Amino acid sequence: MALGGGHGLHASLSALRHLVDDLTVDDLTAVVTVADNGGSSGRLRGEFGVLPPGDLRMALAALCGDDDWGATWARVLQHRFEGDGEMRGHVVGNLLIVGLWELLGDHVDALDWVGRLLGAKGRVLPMAMTPMDITADVRGLDPDHPDALTSVRGQVEVATTDGVITEIALEPPDPEVSPAVTRAIADADWVVLGPGSWFSSVLPHLVVPRLREALVATSARVVVVLNLEEQAGETGGFAPADHLAVLAEHAPDLRIDVVLADRASVADGLDELEETVAALGARLVVGEVAADDGSPRHDPVKLAAAYASVFERC
Amino acid sequence: MALGGGHGLHASLSALRHLVDDLTVDDLTAVVTVADNGGSSGRLRGEFGVLPPGDLRMALAALCGDDDWGATWARVLQHRFEGDGEMRGHVVGNLLIVGLWELLGDHVDALDWVGRLLGAKGRVLPMAMTPMDITADVRGLDPDHPDALTSVRGQVEVATTDGVITEIALEPPDPEVSPAVTRAIADADWVVLGPGSWFSSVLPHLVVPRLREALVATSARVVVVLNLEEQAGETGGFAPADHLAVLAEHAPDLRIDVVLADRASVADGLDELEETVAALGARLVVGEVAADDGSPRHDPVKLAAAYASVFERC
Repeated sequence: MALGGGHGLHASLSALRHLVDDLTVDDLTAVVTVADNGGSSGRLRGEFGVLPPGDLRMALAALCGDDDWGATWARVLQHRFEGDGEMRGHVVGNLLIVGLWELLGDHVDALDWVGRLLGAKGRVLPMAMTPMDITADVRGLDPDHPDALTSVRGQVEVATTDGVITEIALEPPDPEVSPAVTRAIADADWVVLGPGSWFSSVLPHLVVPRLREALVATSARVVVVLNLEEQAGETGGFAPADHLAVLAEHAPDLRIDVVLADRASVADGLDELEETVAALGARLVVGEVAADDGSPRHDPVKLAAAYASVFERC
Repeated sequence: MALGGGHGLHASLSALRHLVDDLTVDDLTAVVTVADNGGSSGRLRGEFGVLPPGDLRMALAALCGDDDWGATWARVLQHRFEGDGEMRGHVVGNLLIVGLWELLGDHVDALDWVGRLLGAKGRVLPMAMTPMDITADVRGLDPDHPDALTSVRGQVEVATTDGVITEIALEPPDPEVSPAVTRAIADADWVVLGPGSWFSSVLPHLVVPRLREALVATSARVVVVLNLEEQAGETGGFAPADHLAVLAEHAPDLRIDVVLADRASVADGLDELEETVAALGARLVVGEVAADDGSPRHDPVKLAAAYASVFERC
């Protein structure tokens, strides 16, 4: 199973779907952050008090069936309205998901309906059953007191802060988690954390008590996938090892089995990374998983091969 | 095939679907007015310059498959957002259809995709390929000149006028019609006109030159289904025979084979109706087709039985 949100989770699922096809993975579940407060998702959340649908929709689209049916419905769900009217910026799939939530009154059941529409190669579940807000302690926002911590609230605000994030928390602090999520974690062979916006998409799962407890208790092995570069705002100035350090600070009890990194991305500071990984009791796997186009995105096929090698060797 | 719009077409299709099930009808096509300028459809038409999707969506929902899949997606497509935000009043299926139109760039293809989603028992096509506006000559709006004609523009405005409508026209006057529509008319065994809002949903088809020509040229037999009562605004004060008279005025060349009326609805003025029907060269079929609850709606099962009797006897 894969935990995350946004484009990072989309990339991970775009890789993992290949492993469903070749039967390396026989059961794929994505657990998605529900703390977005911007864009179409933020507007719908504000209007209807529902979970922000965008990251859930993107994860579902990543898992769409290979045929014309699945691919077309995925494109429809991902379609964003342009123009300059009231619908501008809204995404068709977000509206469909909110409609299903209103109609069926069951978040998980509604997402399963969208999954069936897409012929999805896995299940997509929300991290929590209530909309969440991320708050972050951020250093460096007060010019008079550069070491002082400021509290920043909201996923958009956290993801774009000019300061250095030291810790995140969630509100409400102990949200309800679907039994389907905890069961999937308990039953998993592998849990994939990352890549993605580190503080706003990857770490939130570890801050939800019932999720963290399930992750600590599961016999599944855990692989952490590092990003290809630091991310302005969230992780500006962070070395790969720093990403692992903040992850360990947010979930000290979590056993990490494998850290997967891109070769070129970790060429600088490889020694430090190896030390950090070893200190966590994990194994470092370095491969070529970046897209060829020079963008800071993972290549789905290369990432799939790396996952397969990790899953099969352990 | 069935021509119309709004709740009237929905009722007709809800009846005709039964005849697809029992194989009395082997190919069902609905051709739907695209002149709506109110509500969710009007807003989307104004924002995106697309066909108003609402009547198309309602027709598709009426034809949804019988299983849990078709019924659930029909409910989702028919779901209207409430609350007091920007989405208030929008309907999920309208947004989905507009998204498909934007993405696929082909009105007919997009509607076929929605039909496949629903497992629809027939095909739903737009009356014209461009959004239309209804204009009506209305008598009685000028208190100083009660016989003067005023031009009223817009489906909502026509449907709710306080005066007496004498004639409708469309803008643009000669819109493009999909070849799929003219082919369906040419290939049909039966064409069903009505029930529905007489001037704003039933007659518009007869005012589109390419549609009227196809209807005049087809060897299909034509059945006109009368409404159960006059409709305040559009047909206030109209007897059943008056409905036929304005229909004949709008399409003098159209051969009408059967007029289907509800027994209780035509009890008063039956002689006049019989004369009018005979003068049109048609046969009057009177049956019990109204809903039991006293609403001015057709009962789908009773209407289906009436259609079957009409189709089989001719």
